[in-house]
Amino acid sequence: MPDPAPPIAGLLETSLYADDVRRTADFYRGLFEFKALVDSPRLVAFEVAKKHVLLVFQRGATDDDVVDARGTIPGHDGSGRLHLALSIAASDLEAWRGRLANRGVAIEGEYGWPRGGKSLYFRDPDGALVELATPGLWWTPVRAGTAVDNAARGA
Amino acid sequence: MPDPAPPIAGLLETSLYADDVRRTADFYRGLFEFKALVDSPRLVAFEVAKKHVLLVFQRGATDDDVVDARGTIPGHDGSGRLHLALSIAASDLEAWRGRLANRGVAIEGEYGWPRGGKSLYFRDPDGALVELATPGLWWTPVRAGTAVDNAARGA
Repeated sequence: MPDPAPPIAGLLETSLYADDVRRTADFYRGLFEFKALVDSPRLVAFEVAKKHVLLVFQRGATDDDVVDARGTIPGHDGSGRLHLALSIAASDLEAWRGRLANRGVAIEGEYGWPRGGKSLYFRDPDGALVELATPGLWWTPVRAGTAVDNAARGA
Repeated sequence: MPDPAPPIAGLLETSLYADDVRRTADFYRGLFEFKALVDSPRLVAFEVAKKHVLLVFQRGATDDDVVDARGTIPGHDGSGRLHLALSIAASDLEAWRGRLANRGVAIEGEYGWPRGGKSLYFRDPDGALVELATPGLWWTPVRAGTAVDNAARGA
């Protein structure tokens, strides 16, 4: 009997683990002007594009399960130079290059993708590799009107 | 002089690091029926909701920079029980509970959020904590018509 998977509507959260959650949160808040939905010593949760959440956890504060009357959130943790990518409009690439320079954030790499997208890479205070990518990395900008391309245009 | 940040259009990629990329990719492909955009011994890149990419890297294969004629992708890596959350429709929660049970994936935790959202938590083969969340975790379902709620309805 076929057993199709119900659809996944989107990527809601991605997580980072900081040596000093305050320092790392300040980095993301300052650079991106993200709004914090939660701002605690354990977690700073940033709203991204009004539809995603970037979770910055204090390393060591999430090792154990959280158990309360609402249920159980199992433990998690992470280390290493984790990687995430954020979409930007192609027309904002140079503005981002300038903003990173103005804030003293070194661009550690750049890449021009076969489909025309461009990526800038830099590190957050914990060494995570942050990428800003224009349309044409995974999908072609020719596929105009797709969610990806519209999103990257701020639609 | 004000120096506003250009907008971030969305969360494009999140990354996991697998002890055995084949095993972990099979888990995500089987459970979610994700389409692979790249399927190599180094990386399986899954399209999520036609607008995001879940990157599953072979641990150890991304430590060094990638340098070629197109540019430089700096090295990255990760370990630990990383965490990501995927959005589902509220009406699919029970179907997901059943699908996880049918596939022998143990639900390690459940949580009912104050705004009405519900989350199911389970582990991937590397111990990453995967969450399936219905609308009403970060934002209220009352905020109908927002990107989050529309996305979770498959709009």
